[in-house]
Amino acid sequence: MNDLLDRFRNGDRRALARLITHVENETPTGRAAMRELYGDTGRARSIGITGPPGAGKSTLVDRLALQFRQEALKVAIVAVDPSSPFTGGAILADRVRMRKLADDPEVFIRSMATRGALGGLSRTTGSVLKVLDAFGFDVVLLETVGVGQGEVEVVREAETCIVLEVPGLGDSIQAIKAGVLEIGHIFVVNKADKPGADRVVEQILGMLGLNPTPPEWQPPVIETVATRGEGMKELADQIRAHWSHLDEKSLRRRHIGLRRVADLGEILKGRALGMISEKILAQSGYEELKQQVERGDVDPFEAADRLLPFDGSEDWRLP
Amino acid sequence: MNDLLDRFRNGDRRALARLITHVENETPTGRAAMRELYGDTGRARSIGITGPPGAGKSTLVDRLALQFRQEALKVAIVAVDPSSPFTGGAILADRVRMRKLADDPEVFIRSMATRGALGGLSRTTGSVLKVLDAFGFDVVLLETVGVGQGEVEVVREAETCIVLEVPGLGDSIQAIKAGVLEIGHIFVVNKADKPGADRVVEQILGMLGLNPTPPEWQPPVIETVATRGEGMKELADQIRAHWSHLDEKSLRRRHIGLRRVADLGEILKGRALGMISEKILAQSGYEELKQQVERGDVDPFEAADRLLPFDGSEDWRLP
Repeated sequence: MNDLLDRFRNGDRRALARLITHVENETPTGRAAMRELYGDTGRARSIGITGPPGAGKSTLVDRLALQFRQEALKVAIVAVDPSSPFTGGAILADRVRMRKLADDPEVFIRSMATRGALGGLSRTTGSVLKVLDAFGFDVVLLETVGVGQGEVEVVREAETCIVLEVPGLGDSIQAIKAGVLEIGHIFVVNKADKPGADRVVEQILGMLGLNPTPPEWQPPVIETVATRGEGMKELADQIRAHWSHLDEKSLRRRHIGLRRVADLGEILKGRALGMISEKILAQSGYEELKQQVERGDVDPFEAADRLLPFDGSEDWRLP
Repeated sequence: MNDLLDRFRNGDRRALARLITHVENETPTGRAAMRELYGDTGRARSIGITGPPGAGKSTLVDRLALQFRQEALKVAIVAVDPSSPFTGGAILADRVRMRKLADDPEVFIRSMATRGALGGLSRTTGSVLKVLDAFGFDVVLLETVGVGQGEVEVVREAETCIVLEVPGLGDSIQAIKAGVLEIGHIFVVNKADKPGADRVVEQILGMLGLNPTPPEWQPPVIETVATRGEGMKELADQIRAHWSHLDEKSLRRRHIGLRRVADLGEILKGRALGMISEKILAQSGYEELKQQVERGDVDPFEAADRLLPFDGSEDWRLP
């Protein structure tokens, strides 16, 4: 691992890619590396982008990356695809990124497929963001399809959340997206040259207006046509405005502090699960008891009492 | 709790409703009741129904419930709505169920909103299914919007999974649903009187045909017009055919056995988290250490070493 970390710290992108794989798979090397790198994190700006399939997220993310490159910022893109819980394969095909980005040595692009539970994904996404942060990227763009709650959790790992909407998807889609509306710091109505764009802007403004306690940050709603690069400058300006807001109000320091405490909780939770399951597996009667439970001869609660007697609260009580 | 359980066992529907609330919120009463009722489970048939918003799931579920009622089966309906992670409110409004069902004393209808992580929801959904099973329902219909992976997990709690499709939702929706296709035992193309229905049937058959190892159960594809009750008899017949298949091949006994082992794992996991977090909170230095982590004075890994030294694997290693 030390060799890998040395190369990582020397800016070797292949070492970066390998380290991310370790972190994604939560290997011992990945966990040890997170520990080593933790002190180097807290500098990069993270931006989450979510929206329904077909909203043009990838194009917008590519254009936004180009915009930041023009300002000489180093940019990483992480695209999170929902995948089949059975095959483990990603549903959305890896589309071809803009050539200009793929050839740029200061741009790094990575796809992550969701494996198993989405709770686990938001944890590993958080770790991948930290690895990219430690590598020295100024901006990390985190792109995900906003179709379920798990995906919303993923985007919440980012400091700035952009929610994409688009005209013409119908009302039921809009209804589903209500939960996503609440996480947005900036709203983008993409494909704004299509009919109905103004109505989508109005709908979003209407929903934002329903908020009973107006937040200190009033989320702007921007129209873009990402395929032609229209509105990208304004979007980048609004992102910078949000960064200033986070810095001025010490919100960013607070966000990072809370993340650090949440990380402590996750580390302890992992250890708790590892320690206790190791202890249970080491018990001589475990395998037979498991078979008795499977056959229905012993009730799972009864078996749990024999393996791990405990009558306190079964909740994780740390942050 | 004993009073509540007595009333539950006497068939009191208000006691049933209250018990479900306890189980959903994972209260001590809910947990104790699950333990008491566990031995009474394993009889009800559970049917999961998923599909995109606007596919007519609720209407189909209502019609299917009526069909089973005509066969004198007691039916429970559980509708799982995705909700906002911020407000906790359900996004899809509780629609009015068919009057005929709402007035039927042998039919029980319950809505569940997703609170917090979806992993937690599939766990509580499993528990709610068991409560309804223990109450004596013959069939439990579990209805959910199939938009994300978490929702897929929910439907997998059921023995028989029905996947609804509908003409006219466009290709991007179809693409997202690829992951859902793999869990279906029966496919229904609802609104089959609309143009394009045949093409959807063909698409599903085509995707099913791609399966490299044909399963023992070949999922049928049925066309329905739920608003007019068309195709419901055939759907009920196919559900019964699936039940026979599960029974003949001992698949049902295997499914129940694996669920029991999974339940044992969940109980032990809950205890592990409860025990260890209790232990950590009881340490005198915990609060101050947490603040040091938040301020960035102590690294979360360093803090974890002080609170819970462990250098084994941080994975849960039980089923």
